[in-house]
Amino acid sequence: KTNNPKQPIMKKYYLFAFCLLLTGSLFAQNSNDLKLSVNKGSIKMATEDGQFSFGMGGRVYMDAASYFDDKTDLGSGTEIRDIRLLMKADLWKKWNAKINIGFADGSVSLKDVWLMYKINKNSFVRAGHFLEPFGIEQTESSKTTKFMHAASTVEAFRPGRNLGISYATWGKQVFWEAGLFGSDTNNKTAGDEGYGLTSRFAFAPVQNESGIFHVGMSGIYRTADAAGFNELGEENPKSIRYRSRAATHIEKRRFIDAKVGNADHQTKIGFEMIAATGAVSLQTEYINANVSRNIGEDYTANGWYTQLAWLVKGGNYKYKMKSARLAKPGPGSVELLARYNQTDLNDSGAMIMGGKQKDITIGGTWYVNHNILVKFHFTNVDLDENALNGEENFNMIQTRLQFSF
Amino acid sequence: KTNNPKQPIMKKYYLFAFCLLLTGSLFAQNSNDLKLSVNKGSIKMATEDGQFSFGMGGRVYMDAASYFDDKTDLGSGTEIRDIRLLMKADLWKKWNAKINIGFADGSVSLKDVWLMYKINKNSFVRAGHFLEPFGIEQTESSKTTKFMHAASTVEAFRPGRNLGISYATWGKQVFWEAGLFGSDTNNKTAGDEGYGLTSRFAFAPVQNESGIFHVGMSGIYRTADAAGFNELGEENPKSIRYRSRAATHIEKRRFIDAKVGNADHQTKIGFEMIAATGAVSLQTEYINANVSRNIGEDYTANGWYTQLAWLVKGGNYKYKMKSARLAKPGPGSVELLARYNQTDLNDSGAMIMGGKQKDITIGGTWYVNHNILVKFHFTNVDLDENALNGEENFNMIQTRLQFSF
Amino acid sequence: KTNNPKQPIMKKYYLFAFCLLLTGSLFAQNSNDLKLSVNKGSIKMATEDGQFSFGMGGRVYMDAASYFDDKTDLGSGTEIRDIRLLMKADLWKKWNAKINIGFADGSVSLKDVWLMYKINKNSFVRAGHFLEPFGIEQTESSKTTKFMHAASTVEAFRPGRNLGISYATWGKQVFWEAGLFGSDTNNKTAGDEGYGLTSRFAFAPVQNESGIFHVGMSGIYRTADAAGFNELGEENPKSIRYRSRAATHIEKRRFIDAKVGNADHQTKIGFEMIAATGAVSLQTEYINANVSRNIGEDYTANGWYTQLAWLVKGGNYKYKMKSARLAKPGPGSVELLARYNQTDLNDSGAMIMGGKQKDITIGGTWYVNHNILVKFHFTNVDLDENALNGEENFNMIQTRLQFSF
Repeated sequence: KTNNPKQPIMKKYYLFAFCLLLTGSLFAQNSNDLKLSVNKGSIKMATEDGQFSFGMGGRVYMDAASYFDDKTDLGSGTEIRDIRLLMKADLWKKWNAKINIGFADGSVSLKDVWLMYKINKNSFVRAGHFLEPFGIEQTESSKTTKFMHAASTVEAFRPGRNLGISYATWGKQVFWEAGLFGSDTNNKTAGDEGYGLTSRFAFAPVQNESGIFHVGMSGIYRTADAAGFNELGEENPKSIRYRSRAATHIEKRRFIDAKVGNADHQTKIGFEMIAATGAVSLQTEYINANVSRNIGEDYTANGWYTQLAWLVKGGNYKYKMKSARLAKPGPGSVELLARYNQTDLNDSGAMIMGGKQKDITIGGTWYVNHNILVKFHFTNVDLDENALNGEENFNMIQTRLQFSF
Repeated sequence: KTNNPKQPIMKKYYLFAFCLLLTGSLFAQNSNDLKLSVNKGSIKMATEDGQFSFGMGGRVYMDAASYFDDKTDLGSGTEIRDIRLLMKADLWKKWNAKINIGFADGSVSLKDVWLMYKINKNSFVRAGHFLEPFGIEQTESSKTTKFMHAASTVEAFRPGRNLGISYATWGKQVFWEAGLFGSDTNNKTAGDEGYGLTSRFAFAPVQNESGIFHVGMSGIYRTADAAGFNELGEENPKSIRYRSRAATHIEKRRFIDAKVGNADHQTKIGFEMIAATGAVSLQTEYINANVSRNIGEDYTANGWYTQLAWLVKGGNYKYKMKSARLAKPGPGSVELLARYNQTDLNDSGAMIMGGKQKDITIGGTWYVNHNILVKFHFTNVDLDENALNGEENFNMIQTRLQFSF
Repeated sequence: KTNNPKQPIMKKYYLFAFCLLLTGSLFAQNSNDLKLSVNKGSIKMATEDGQFSFGMGGRVYMDAASYFDDKTDLGSGTEIRDIRLLMKADLWKKWNAKINIGFADGSVSLKDVWLMYKINKNSFVRAGHFLEPFGIEQTESSKTTKFMHAASTVEAFRPGRNLGISYATWGKQVFWEAGLFGSDTNNKTAGDEGYGLTSRFAFAPVQNESGIFHVGMSGIYRTADAAGFNELGEENPKSIRYRSRAATHIEKRRFIDAKVGNADHQTKIGFEMIAATGAVSLQTEYINANVSRNIGEDYTANGWYTQLAWLVKGGNYKYKMKSARLAKPGPGSVELLARYNQTDLNDSGAMIMGGKQKDITIGGTWYVNHNILVKFHFTNVDLDENALNGEENFNMIQTRLQFSF
């Protein structure tokens, strides 16, 4: 046997091959197997070939507000501002699906519910219920907006989520999305729904270590929803409404509110700007809304906000071209914030005085980890004589504990 | 050393055993471990011993409809027809549980919510909220029904889902299910709920390559729900109602509607037939409903539909004895469809004229993959003088984008 | 070659090391990998380092009730008493999050929705929507309470779940929790919400094989919710209400009901006792409620229950100091039950006669496995002349099929 020293070596090779086979068979997983892991604090299930990926999770915002009243007696208290269940899936490599349902206030509200087809790495077509592409804050998840509440200007003029179809594409410096949308999915009024054409274009020539600069523009054309029929079977006059809460949600009254009767359609234009240098960023949006009326003068309203943010801890601001906005600061970050916002729903020409609101907020956010954040805001609200209860000025302190996974 | 050539070989065996042990320990999984995989585009978690299996997912139907009106002004538009979250579990080998909740129209509606005990491979007992065993289309998930909307006959007479208990068994050629059911789970009217006895029997003597032939019969006996009490504490007269939309859901009005007062109980009989040869299939159902009344003549109504389907692409039709109906065509299939349906809620003897509807639909379905399908329908609806707005005839085009995972 | 017998051995070592490497790489999982398993019939996903853990599941209670009436005509029937979807997460080792939403009666109701920070092994701080720490049955999940329905005393006086923050700590023999809570999350009335201070203390000196003995005490101070404003802008008089169903839920009427007007705040005190020896256990709670009023005499009401349980099969009762109550009997257990309960909402001094209810229940529970249980109860209810329809006495049989995973 010692004459053939190859034999033991051969055997070793067999053994070696066998071991490889055994262990290899574990690596060579069935392409249908999903690998389960935690990704930034959330569940991720994915096949290794990139064909399938699933995720599921939830989100909760718990708010408290204390109001220092002027004229109107505001209701201080607590609420679960939002609570959601989420399922999402990447299917057959090219398709994405998302189901996100909200359960705040003890009722069901559909959030992102859509099916997306990825044309290539930089463009997609999407059908379903999602945020119309208009401006920065309107298109951003409340999970990442810097303030607890959208600017009143955005709340008043935003198209929100509607059932529709859109196309989006982005390059190294530009982003463009355009879509066609139906109306409120829960609309139960007799008659045809209105529809809207919406588009957003953004250009970000500077995105580097030293700074970020982004400008953009959005536009909407939307027809008014039917308002039912009168006894003669004729269409009732249609209306379009703009209104907003006072940068808060626990007190639910809308202090500015313009209901424009005899409406045919509305057009809105929005301008946006983001500038950042290091740990300081500035974001501004201006929105102008115009309602074409069948009877009476056209109605015009507008508003704007500007917000300053400073990452006291957490490095520099980053930019995401895919969504054309600032990225969420990393875990552990601490951010200081200030915002000035004014919204003017008065149009003396159209004889519709919806009120004018100016508000200033200063506050901060602690991004505890990927899952948890805490917000704290002080806000002063100033209303003119056309507001709900006339001229008044009040203050509030608000705080949010948010978790998601 | 060379005198003992066994030693290295022994060591090799040890090494071999050790490798086996190492790798083997990875194979010999704890029976509590769940294997995670994708099964037909959905998440599957299962233990290897078949004791446990879990699944979770969602479903969304997005519809659009355009109506070409006659007399009634119909509301064209879009809607999310259905949106669901699903969890299911196979527990301790013998038990199955399912929780399926719908969130369409911004409200919660319970779908399949049940616990099943598998007696053996071919029979089970089930308790909970599920579809009463009556006919083909009534017992089929809307995920797989060929048309966007159930035939108006089925919509008018179907018992739907109720809280109850049933027993089902099937063999090579027969299927039988029978159950006892309570009434609408959300019933809040004072007084005792009605109850129903429901059964379906099907016989499929031909199920092979060359063709499929299936006949069946179903029956229901159901008492009327209490309608509360009058001031004297006496029971109010009970009623039973049959009604249907016009083969559409975005326009929500029911054009045929018979409310039968002074009702005691109802009996319904259904006949069903499926015939297929190769890529062509025919499905027909006839339903007769009778209401026994305490005052006045008994009320009788009936309806039937017949539908033709042709798999232009996707092979031949297949049959599932377990549910006694055609199986869902495979991914990639393209199907052409035609259906004639008429429902007559007029009974001049009982002096209740609920209206008569005839409708014809032609359309098609593209089964994009396991998760996605697209439907497209053209429908003509013809109503008699007893319908909601009298005699009229209108057309509509409808489309659906459906995804589930 | 045989001159160097070391070589093959060296090679073997390399081979050995290589095998170790190969297999070892499989053991040395990424700390982000989640291991998927079944734990007591439920899905569990956890990292091996204890940093993350996720769970998801559902729960359904299906009830039927048959009433043997006295004066009031009660509505026998069936219902899905509760149906829930659950997601929970242990995040970054120190944090726990839970989202539990109920969908019974076709509406959304928030259940446990909270974020917890684990200070150490024996204490935590929790913020969110959860059961205020008051007594035994109020703080226990309906999944494990011995009876289908909470004692009417607990139903009448319980604070339920509210949005708040609490601190809990426990040792070998003591448990203490205290919290500050807002009011009903769905409160939409104008004006400030009320708030509550709630605390529970329990002492369990005996927890061994031969027996269990536990006593405890709870207290609440809670201000009344605002009731809106009158035309002059003045606050409407506030009220506090105590009421309860008749140890059942399918018949929804509350037979005892006291609405205390001109209320300022309420204080409640609860005493609790658990004693067990072997397979027999006794549990008792007494609650006294007092409403301080701005006009009129203070209102006082009280109630108590005592329940006896016998584990015919399933071993001895066990105790959990972490929640300060008896543990759920193991799978396969069979338990016999008896409960006497009386609730007196009459206060002649305050001239508010809400009615008095005495009820006796005998029944049993079969814990089929970790996921499924069946309950069966017979109940006699006795009401005094101040109850909804005056003096009466009726009986009922109720049963529940419960599953969860």
